[in-house]
Amino acid sequence: MLAAMNILITGGSGFLGARLARTLLQQGSLSLRGAPARRIERITLTDIAPPPADLAADARVTHVGGDLLELLAARRLPGAGTDAVFHLAAAVSGECEADFDLGMRSNLAATQALLEACRALGSRPVLVFASSLAVFGKLPGQPLPEPIEDQTLPTPQSSYGIQKFVCEQLVADYARKGFFFGRSVRLMTVSVRPGRPNGAASGFLSGMIREPLAGLKAAVPVPAATPVALASPARTVEGLLRAAEAPDADWGPLIALNLPSLRTSVGEMAAALETVAGREATALLDWTPDAAIGRLVSTWPGDIQWDRARALGLRADASFEAVVRDYIRENPQAVKLPVK
Amino acid sequence: MLAAMNILITGGSGFLGARLARTLLQQGSLSLRGAPARRIERITLTDIAPPPADLAADARVTHVGGDLLELLAARRLPGAGTDAVFHLAAAVSGECEADFDLGMRSNLAATQALLEACRALGSRPVLVFASSLAVFGKLPGQPLPEPIEDQTLPTPQSSYGIQKFVCEQLVADYARKGFFFGRSVRLMTVSVRPGRPNGAASGFLSGMIREPLAGLKAAVPVPAATPVALASPARTVEGLLRAAEAPDADWGPLIALNLPSLRTSVGEMAAALETVAGREATALLDWTPDAAIGRLVSTWPGDIQWDRARALGLRADASFEAVVRDYIRENPQAVKLPVK
Repeated sequence: MLAAMNILITGGSGFLGARLARTLLQQGSLSLRGAPARRIERITLTDIAPPPADLAADARVTHVGGDLLELLAARRLPGAGTDAVFHLAAAVSGECEADFDLGMRSNLAATQALLEACRALGSRPVLVFASSLAVFGKLPGQPLPEPIEDQTLPTPQSSYGIQKFVCEQLVADYARKGFFFGRSVRLMTVSVRPGRPNGAASGFLSGMIREPLAGLKAAVPVPAATPVALASPARTVEGLLRAAEAPDADWGPLIALNLPSLRTSVGEMAAALETVAGREATALLDWTPDAAIGRLVSTWPGDIQWDRARALGLRADASFEAVVRDYIRENPQAVKLPVK
Repeated sequence: MLAAMNILITGGSGFLGARLARTLLQQGSLSLRGAPARRIERITLTDIAPPPADLAADARVTHVGGDLLELLAARRLPGAGTDAVFHLAAAVSGECEADFDLGMRSNLAATQALLEACRALGSRPVLVFASSLAVFGKLPGQPLPEPIEDQTLPTPQSSYGIQKFVCEQLVADYARKGFFFGRSVRLMTVSVRPGRPNGAASGFLSGMIREPLAGLKAAVPVPAATPVALASPARTVEGLLRAAEAPDADWGPLIALNLPSLRTSVGEMAAALETVAGREATALLDWTPDAAIGRLVSTWPGDIQWDRARALGLRADASFEAVVRDYIRENPQAVKLPVK
């Protein structure tokens, strides 16, 4: 019988957190930093929202509901014996740009409190921090450095990006000090996200596929040529897991790791939608530009290198058409148009 | 008659803060961001320690004594009508490495509170943040990137460096949001500092000149070949002032600016001391290595480019010998050995 392991997922009721939890529950065990795999005894999902029914029904799942910063201040998280923490909770980019204080609280203060709480455990857990490609931004009047590598200086042009980059730095220093094993991964634009739109500036990159497949109109507020560094939900969860699993020597230095991305464009994404679901689908796209979203998205890079992630065995999606077909297979109830 | 201006200097009783205040009082006026110069009506020095007597005696100087974070929490700083803030207060590198919580409080939390307080003024002051070359560090198992430019990714290998780098990011975002005009300058190793040793890991780079000139023994805890990116107190104050003065277009993007440095080595510094004060001086140097200091200092780069600073009219010291002679001229009471 394998030794037992306890895992905490912040933002655990969200789409990525829930998918990560399902993957962990299905595999039943996890290896941390190259150590022998251990049986997953408990997964604690913390989130304001309750977890999806399938997760709530699993005896191994505990839900701790509430505001993350308040829960941490009340010392309700992480529980003693927590071996690994996946920190996914965040206010999204559009929200943080509209409400500076919200982002500073939800993304910076809450993460700082979580790092302190992990340090206070005294047991040196593994902490995987979900950073974002939004740390990269184009300085006004300068070209975007391309290609972008793990060692490229991020110059975030959004509060969300600044907050993520600052937390990468704090994770690195807490890890360097031996308070926990810290690993920051930069998530690419995740598409296709199921469910409802969120406040992320990049939300339309899921909506422009999801809504037409459901027979609904969708906004595409940027030009077709806009480059996109994209990963499917499956590839994204793979990256989060690999960050926890990789031995220290394989992981390398305590700097954030760019996860693999499929390099595509908004226009190519629309073309893939048309290949899969026909002109009936793309006719539902409304290409009216939105200046606010355009400003944010236009500073995000399309060409992000991920050599270090590749060396860890990670890979990008083969094509966006394959991503769309995965979405349809996984979310049949959400698809109303006939698929070719 | 010129319009009036109020200035706040945190760490204002410290060596650099006091020198900056003296320079400002002597010139009597300051131009902010290329605007017409205004008469300096008041300089508020905040520090735990009282200011030097000459500053305390100046009618334009106010001292607000106490812990910076507590003063900010009590809303005692900055006063309404503050036009410019020079944020120099910090716990030094050696202290922060020995006491993690001290550094997080004094360097990160206090800076965060100061940024919020400047934002709350509502009058969009100029904030000059004193960052440090200590943001640069050598990743384990990798060579230091050289030369280092403003756009080189810092990978700090000390908590002090992380805290400075994080604050650079926050200053940039508060400035981008229009809460104030923010400018981060990376100070080089300042030598020769007068007075007593502080807890900085780089403190010996002043002590190895100052103490022998006073007839005292001094530790040189690193090898002679150790590279040093150095600036005299005068050049350092010039850099802080220029950051406040430069028009926005000249300053450029909201990323930190490497101040000019003289590229030298510990051995060359000792040689300059010998040129100025003879073998009697260098005989007082104790070259016993110190592992803890060596670990920190060995990750600091020697070759730091400063093209952007040069374009702003800043310059490096001509030679370390000239720096030593400046120190002797400015601190005659501290020199006991005969000077050649």
